Amino acid sequence: MTPKTAVILAAGLGTRMGGRPKGLLKVAGREILYRTMHLLQRNGVKRFVIVTNERYAPLYREFVERHGFNAELVINPEPEKGNGHSLHLAKSHVSGRFVLVMSDHVYNESFVAEAIRGNGLIADREPRWIDVEEATKVKVKDGRVERIGKGLKDWDAVDTGFFVLDDGIFRVTEVLENERNGDYSLSEVVERAKLPVTFVDGLGWTDVDTPEELKRARKMLVFTAVKGTGDGFISRHLNRKISTRISYLLVEKVTPNQMTVVAFALGVLSAFLTLISLPLAGILYQLSSILDGVDGELARAQLRTSRLGGYVDSILDRYVDGTFLALLAYSTLKEPLWYLVALLALLGSVMVSYSTERFKGAFCRDAYREVPALRKLPGKRDERIFLTMLFLLYPMEALVKALFLLLAVLTNIRVALTVWMVGRKKR
Amino acid sequence: MTPKTAVILAAGLGTRMGGRPKGLLKVAGREILYRTMHLLQRNGVKRFVIVTNERYAPLYREFVERHGFNAELVINPEPEKGNGHSLHLAKSHVSGRFVLVMSDHVYNESFVAEAIRGNGLIADREPRWIDVEEATKVKVKDGRVERIGKGLKDWDAVDTGFFVLDDGIFRVTEVLENERNGDYSLSEVVERAKLPVTFVDGLGWTDVDTPEELKRARKMLVFTAVKGTGDGFISRHLNRKISTRISYLLVEKVTPNQMTVVAFALGVLSAFLTLISLPLAGILYQLSSILDGVDGELARAQLRTSRLGGYVDSILDRYVDGTFLALLAYSTLKEPLWYLVALLALLGSVMVSYSTERFKGAFCRDAYREVPALRKLPGKRDERIFLTMLFLLYPMEALVKALFLLLAVLTNIRVALTVWMVGRKKR
Repeated sequence: MTPKTAVILAAGLGTRMGGRPKGLLKVAGREILYRTMHLLQRNGVKRFVIVTNERYAPLYREFVERHGFNAELVINPEPEKGNGHSLHLAKSHVSGRFVLVMSDHVYNESFVAEAIRGNGLIADREPRWIDVEEATKVKVKDGRVERIGKGLKDWDAVDTGFFVLDDGIFRVTEVLENERNGDYSLSEVVERAKLPVTFVDGLGWTDVDTPEELKRARKMLVFTAVKGTGDGFISRHLNRKISTRISYLLVEKVTPNQMTVVAFALGVLSAFLTLISLPLAGILYQLSSILDGVDGELARAQLRTSRLGGYVDSILDRYVDGTFLALLAYSTLKEPLWYLVALLALLGSVMVSYSTERFKGAFCRDAYREVPALRKLPGKRDERIFLTMLFLLYPMEALVKALFLLLAVLTNIRVALTVWMVGRKKR
Repeated sequence: MTPKTAVILAAGLGTRMGGRPKGLLKVAGREILYRTMHLLQRNGVKRFVIVTNERYAPLYREFVERHGFNAELVINPEPEKGNGHSLHLAKSHVSGRFVLVMSDHVYNESFVAEAIRGNGLIADREPRWIDVEEATKVKVKDGRVERIGKGLKDWDAVDTGFFVLDDGIFRVTEVLENERNGDYSLSEVVERAKLPVTFVDGLGWTDVDTPEELKRARKMLVFTAVKGTGDGFISRHLNRKISTRISYLLVEKVTPNQMTVVAFALGVLSAFLTLISLPLAGILYQLSSILDGVDGELARAQLRTSRLGGYVDSILDRYVDGTFLALLAYSTLKEPLWYLVALLALLGSVMVSYSTERFKGAFCRDAYREVPALRKLPGKRDERIFLTMLFLLYPMEALVKALFLLLAVLTNIRVALTVWMVGRKKR
């Protein structure tokens, strides 16, 4: 059972970020807290308790109302005291298991999905997107926190600011309230409680203390936003390396839909360029193929993925490929026999996608996940387009013919193998 | 809550069917009782109680074991007595709500799905597949059975042999057991209990008493096995009228997969025939289009539908269309410009299907159900193939060119409209 409630600590006065509450800073077009709350909701959390200070409360209230989150605000009148006290203030608002999370940490989809299934302190032994110097480290013994702190020399993992607790934790805060007169840090609570530790290693999370770190969070979101399944060789080794950098530059300014239109327009333009210059057409086609990855990356980084977006994008891709091949044939070929080859190449190109998409239609599951062997088949779109560009670099009729023949054979064999593999798996 | 248990009355000695238990007679390749039990299971029934006689018991035992049904057999040692007694014998085997159904009635998918949500006696005011003379009629008053019997002159509906009861019915059988010394009909129970009546009108059900009625049951299953959604104008008004007749002839002999192979082979043959005779090619193409409906009809009538079957069938259809258009272009066209038109016609033809199938991939729902307006768009496969046949009847280059132009425009506009309609619905 995943927790249904989450407590968010948002009382700290961010001194290095211009006095605006850090949870309301935007990364990749979304407030940090929108991301965290949206992803928690997607993983089963129904209710939020936000502990904040008097100054920030109106801002957070406006925020939760605007997004329609089911959230209560709890005011910490003494935010300058340690954040352990903030947790204690949530005591009467939660029962049973709950998530505890920091308002200035940015998490991506896969991190939240993993972390919420853990227990106690969620720690990362391979932190990729933080400054380890500045991080809170944890020494673990027998699966529990032994020591925690920024200055630890001997440590096992880094505190991700994400906890899965139960209300027993308030027995510990109760004791500390009395001992320290309400001024103690969350770390002291964690150490005193000897929280269990769950390792969630190498996934996407970071914290934000300075404007520099806001950029790092943006980078983390974009570079971990690659879908992956269905990517071919060229996509993995070339296109994604470029498209993620483009996405990083555009993620605060451009929407996925805008990018879809641009990539489609470039693709169609490249198709018509075949009438003028084959090398230019090929290069622009490859460029549009790179940009074709950007809309998806933007959508995932901005938490704006939509089924409709994927649907339209997929149909536009087929039209770019279809018109490119049709106009390339028209601009180059003369003999009917070669047109026959071109017709079969066009058929095969569309059918490569049809045969995997139709799988999803039939089984409501992703073909590459269900039949992983399909990933190894060559002939995916990124590979075909790269091949097309190579064959068009030196404009020569024989090369275009060779390209069409290669595509006709490659794509249709791929479809036959796809059907065979699906049949073997599903019979 | 739909019932979890079903009682099946199968004790009657079928005198007109060669002494074999009627529930084990096959219609469209499946035992009558396999159909009923399979469809009940699909609608939530987990457990069966079959009341039979001593002679049939070993046959029914073998049957339930072979199919792995969760069923108990209850022996009626006096099957010659009325079937009300058979129901009474099930008393200690059921509790709460249960389905009661006759072993000699054949029901189709939609009937069972509707009937199981009803209450009391399920009656049909528009029986389509039975001999009303022979049927048990019901007179209804205030939503309950007033009179029931074969000879009723004044009646409202026909008894479908399907009941949704609760164990209160056994108070009625208890009384009749004493009054009649165990010899009374189910109709007497129904009338005495004044069962509520649920009308399920005009759907697929019939009963089987004679070999002639076995044929009628087969006809009912085949003629109600048309899927419908996605059928175009030609399919509804021509192809289905022929394909269902073919299915009726083949349903006991041919499997859906065999039919898929035959239709595909004919389609590919018709594509190659374009090299020899356009009229013949067109006619054979249209014939393969009719046969393309048969595999689905056989699968539904034989309860053999499979996602894999639908997947493979759909890809083969695209290849038949693609190779037909490619070879038709090759055999007729000379100028590059017309090849360009042919390439766009082929692209559009595949994309018509892609744009609706990709919808299912994106939304896990049938496009025609979700966006009913799509049904009205012309350009479906059955319509395109019929059009192709018409244009090829009189072999002339200009007609082939006109066909390609028409297809290129029609199909691609259809795809654009599909995307537009889906976008309007799903935004």
